[in-house]
Amino acid sequence: MKQNRVNAVLKNMESMNLSQILITDPLAIFYLTGRMIKPFERFYALYLNQNGNHKIFINQLETVPEDLGVEKVRFTDSDPYLDLVIKAIDCKEPLGIDKNMAARFLLPLIDRKAASGFVNASLALDQARAVKDTQEQELMRKASKLNDMAMTEITRFFKEGVTETELAEQLKKIYRDLGADGLSFEPLFAFGENAASGHHWPDQTKLKAGDCIVADIGCTWEGYCSDMTRTYFYKEVTNRQQEVYNLVLKANEEAEKAVAPGVSLSSLDQIARGIITEQGYGAAFTHRLGHFIGLEAHEFGDVSSASTGQAVAGNIFSIEPGVYLEKDMGVRIEDLVLVTEQGYERLNHLSKDLTVVE
Amino acid sequence: MKQNRVNAVLKNMESMNLSQILITDPLAIFYLTGRMIKPFERFYALYLNQNGNHKIFINQLETVPEDLGVEKVRFTDSDPYLDLVIKAIDCKEPLGIDKNMAARFLLPLIDRKAASGFVNASLALDQARAVKDTQEQELMRKASKLNDMAMTEITRFFKEGVTETELAEQLKKIYRDLGADGLSFEPLFAFGENAASGHHWPDQTKLKAGDCIVADIGCTWEGYCSDMTRTYFYKEVTNRQQEVYNLVLKANEEAEKAVAPGVSLSSLDQIARGIITEQGYGAAFTHRLGHFIGLEAHEFGDVSSASTGQAVAGNIFSIEPGVYLEKDMGVRIEDLVLVTEQGYERLNHLSKDLTVVE
Repeated sequence: MKQNRVNAVLKNMESMNLSQILITDPLAIFYLTGRMIKPFERFYALYLNQNGNHKIFINQLETVPEDLGVEKVRFTDSDPYLDLVIKAIDCKEPLGIDKNMAARFLLPLIDRKAASGFVNASLALDQARAVKDTQEQELMRKASKLNDMAMTEITRFFKEGVTETELAEQLKKIYRDLGADGLSFEPLFAFGENAASGHHWPDQTKLKAGDCIVADIGCTWEGYCSDMTRTYFYKEVTNRQQEVYNLVLKANEEAEKAVAPGVSLSSLDQIARGIITEQGYGAAFTHRLGHFIGLEAHEFGDVSSASTGQAVAGNIFSIEPGVYLEKDMGVRIEDLVLVTEQGYERLNHLSKDLTVVE
Repeated sequence: MKQNRVNAVLKNMESMNLSQILITDPLAIFYLTGRMIKPFERFYALYLNQNGNHKIFINQLETVPEDLGVEKVRFTDSDPYLDLVIKAIDCKEPLGIDKNMAARFLLPLIDRKAASGFVNASLALDQARAVKDTQEQELMRKASKLNDMAMTEITRFFKEGVTETELAEQLKKIYRDLGADGLSFEPLFAFGENAASGHHWPDQTKLKAGDCIVADIGCTWEGYCSDMTRTYFYKEVTNRQQEVYNLVLKANEEAEKAVAPGVSLSSLDQIARGIITEQGYGAAFTHRLGHFIGLEAHEFGDVSSASTGQAVAGNIFSIEPGVYLEKDMGVRIEDLVLVTEQGYERLNHLSKDLTVVE
């Protein structure tokens, strides 16, 4: 068990007046134990109690290390495992559960009155996960470093006639060769007018001179995600493309510079959106400025006009303004930033200068 | 809406005394509407009622065709969508929900007494999905045909020193070139003693003469899954390897031959296990004989000693006996079979003769 992380969750629970929580989200359990188990349809849960009487429920089919640092309760497919869970839960107190707990586990607990009430307590986990500890920061740095290298490498494959799909496949090979352990998400490449949609998926479109190339890519390192977008131009660039690019770049840079502990997240969105709106492209910036990231590419917490929170040292989120012009082009520039005690650290180090690839 | 499938679900609900169900599993909704939407963290649900007053709840962000054949209830991220759902539900009747409904949706419905009770009613969906209609059968045939072609193609890459990972990557390319729309699961290749584990994942192990090669692979066609295992030998084969191979082959063939409507699923497992046990390898056949398959590689329904059901025309499941000898080798031979009115149809047509690849 990662005791500091467990303590953070217990502290968050305290402010929710919760003495116990039952966690079934495998990623949340990984976060707390350091051990990844994918249970598929089987029951797998971590029970935490303020009294320290934590337990982990794991099917016998899973191999787990001896020293998980928490009492293991093992059961087989034919065991009445819910009896074991109910025995552990204090039925006189409300039970926190995570937002993704499946109905097939939750309903029987409710029917059998395993607790005095059932509360979605995911915030206790999400708020802890939003503040990365030094170990997590190091893994996130490494993932973004690999991502920088991969982006540099993939630009070598920008050739007349290459398709978006071919680039996506080539990138996966690059990630493997670099030793990344997986993808944060399926790589996104969009050429020319395909880039006018914020979420175009790679297809058989061929690259041609004058196209913009939006590359939104991310790999994982020990489970932690990177996520970066760069926009390139192939062989030639028009004045308008340059104008849009430099506008998005300015929005990206000014928002990043403002990142510091205590700064409201909505003000970051405002800075970027203000710059873009001032030049008449406000309606073309169709999404929030950024999202939190960690073990998942999109984690709890966003950087938008609707955000009510403030940046806290240890937060890692994306800064990714974009301008999308229908039937024409798109530009997005995205970095991950870590909020530090002094201000911020950018996790991506790849140049953002306007680049025309020959 | 696929009216026959909706009717099958409603009929199953009737026998559970349920007048209404709220379905949030995107695959189950796809099965009933023919339309795939991946809602990520957003609310997305199909409500069915015996009175025909069906509704589908879809965020405005999703683009959907006009003619879904069911009343659409649209809402934005800032709308109180649960109010709309609660308005649709008959609060005086119990509500069926699917087994995977997330706690963040279920708990508020319970708290607000949206129904007189909440019941895991996934069986109504699962039992309908277990009987494939002719359209689904055709898609499953096509997926397995692509899989046959892919397996034939990948054997060309069995060369001295090739790694399991390289084969897995090559296979993905083959699937793409064949036009498959995705993977049923990550391809599994295991050489030599790696094959002694039923679920070894591809690593950097290099192929060498005398190795067995277990290849367990599957692609999708319009969302429907194929799944096949073949075991090859590289350059040479020992008497013992041949003996084990022929034993597993016999178990596979005899179990397949017994498939027919009305046959108990457990008896199929018994036939294969009996053959293997008789030759002293019973303990080395460490898993169930098969699993149901369709929109998911593993669907509700299995073919094991614990199965209580009978084969029904339209069922599609795997027949995959295996023998795993620690620190030595493994053999598994798997086909998908469709239960027909007369008996069965094998969806894989690739030879199962013992093959030594040069």
